[in-house]
Amino acid sequence: MKITFCCSDTKAGPWLTGLRAALPGAQVEVWQAGAAPAEHAVVWAPPQQFFDEQPQLKGIFNIGAGVDALLKLRLPPQATVVRLDDAGMSVQMAEYVCHAVIRHFREFDAYEADARAGLWSFRKPRVRADFSVGVMGLGVLGQRVARALRQFEFPVLGWSRSSKDIEGVRSFAGAAQFHDFLAVSKVLVNLLPLTPDTRDILRFDTLSKLPPGAYVINVARGAHLVEQDLIALIASGHLAGATLDVFRSEPLPLEHPFWQHPKITITPHTSARTLRDESIAQIAGKMMALERGEPVAGVVDRGRGY
Amino acid sequence: MKITFCCSDTKAGPWLTGLRAALPGAQVEVWQAGAAPAEHAVVWAPPQQFFDEQPQLKGIFNIGAGVDALLKLRLPPQATVVRLDDAGMSVQMAEYVCHAVIRHFREFDAYEADARAGLWSFRKPRVRADFSVGVMGLGVLGQRVARALRQFEFPVLGWSRSSKDIEGVRSFAGAAQFHDFLAVSKVLVNLLPLTPDTRDILRFDTLSKLPPGAYVINVARGAHLVEQDLIALIASGHLAGATLDVFRSEPLPLEHPFWQHPKITITPHTSARTLRDESIAQIAGKMMALERGEPVAGVVDRGRGY
Repeated sequence: MKITFCCSDTKAGPWLTGLRAALPGAQVEVWQAGAAPAEHAVVWAPPQQFFDEQPQLKGIFNIGAGVDALLKLRLPPQATVVRLDDAGMSVQMAEYVCHAVIRHFREFDAYEADARAGLWSFRKPRVRADFSVGVMGLGVLGQRVARALRQFEFPVLGWSRSSKDIEGVRSFAGAAQFHDFLAVSKVLVNLLPLTPDTRDILRFDTLSKLPPGAYVINVARGAHLVEQDLIALIASGHLAGATLDVFRSEPLPLEHPFWQHPKITITPHTSARTLRDESIAQIAGKMMALERGEPVAGVVDRGRGY
Repeated sequence: MKITFCCSDTKAGPWLTGLRAALPGAQVEVWQAGAAPAEHAVVWAPPQQFFDEQPQLKGIFNIGAGVDALLKLRLPPQATVVRLDDAGMSVQMAEYVCHAVIRHFREFDAYEADARAGLWSFRKPRVRADFSVGVMGLGVLGQRVARALRQFEFPVLGWSRSSKDIEGVRSFAGAAQFHDFLAVSKVLVNLLPLTPDTRDILRFDTLSKLPPGAYVINVARGAHLVEQDLIALIASGHLAGATLDVFRSEPLPLEHPFWQHPKITITPHTSARTLRDESIAQIAGKMMALERGEPVAGVVDRGRGY
């Protein structure tokens, strides 16, 4: 079995070593123009030329959860496109979101500012029952985030394409229930895949439907959020603030107002990083399953876009 | 049934209203010198005179989890002393500790400083399996904290007087296993009751047993920690830092070095606040159970000190 590796911004050495160890007998090489045809590809942001030269591919394994960039390319029509599911990412996402929700709910940022000013401050505790957290997107990552939030006894709501039955999570589904979902989400957490339907989904008219004082957490893709609309709704006082890990342009341009905005916390696309060892184990297992003709999790529906 | 209310630093009105609503028929009054004898007392930091004048008390209900200050007073020997157990405190404690552990593990404080400096930074992810969190004290609060940490897949260790069987938590017990426990706790979370045995338990020789680069979280009592020893071990590089909610003197004196210490995050004893409604419901239920001669949870063992 031949495996070709074509990942930008990724140190290839440890991936090759890991894949070779996990798949003894397989030939694993970094792709170069004119390379011999392979059965499977491990990719991250590959060039179009890669797929043009490898039309015979059976499996295309994306080393991330989001395949929006990959699906913009012309891919071999018969190839099975597989995204990474979990591989140590869902626990990181649960951590990131819980940290941001707790920090906002408990006002730890304000306490820290008080402490730096030498103030032993008292703040009236916020009421947990009033702090509904709405999770957009209930795939592997979204479900894990919802479960983690439940443990802290927040009311948790979920919105997804089709209704989901998750213990303790109030489900809203589809366009028909989107506004009802927004109206009761005091904290909005975006974990949707980026598709033509979800691009710009967080914009002036939708964010305006959130209750006054709502808070936004975006850990999916920058293109979900119309950034100037968020800034306008914070300026008007309708929104309390935001924690953002993803941006329309990354790295965030130096002149961008998010850097110094006092009510927006930003991180450099670090909410859930691809963990190499877990990913290699998962990809190797799925390649063997595909070879045996067995079903694998995380197969991308190209029509749906995720 | 007569109930007397003697709580410093507490607005009495809403407590009286709540207790009267929960215990129809009971007479609930704020204690004053010379007041008539009552069956039960609801107290927080009462003066010695209170107990000297009310030697007939059957039940003494402390509106907090820690009874160290109360047990320093001479109490009516026959009275049952009851501390608050949970009443909305354990979820707050789980929140506080998870926020502090995640913030340290994921270096969100460093990312925020980078963002303020306009840096789109990359940090190598820390390895979760190397981040054992050791929880000292496995009562109602400690068990809840340990469970919450497990959800984020940290290795969790617990240390308590007697061995505890908690799913997913490696148990260490008693003085004999204390040093073994410290040696593997990359993050140390203190939730012990304050007793003569546990006073100053976090001091130079014990904190030195933690692995290099360890992090300390104290949410129990200030007197557990010898503050200058913590500062010395951070200065020497042995400890990475600390998050502290409690102090030997509260409010923290203005000249205290913790206020501006770059590696110590402080909060003003806010990790788990007494929530009035939950506490009233719990105290009312326990008073009725005591009156019926039934067992109640949270009865203090005066000899043990908690």
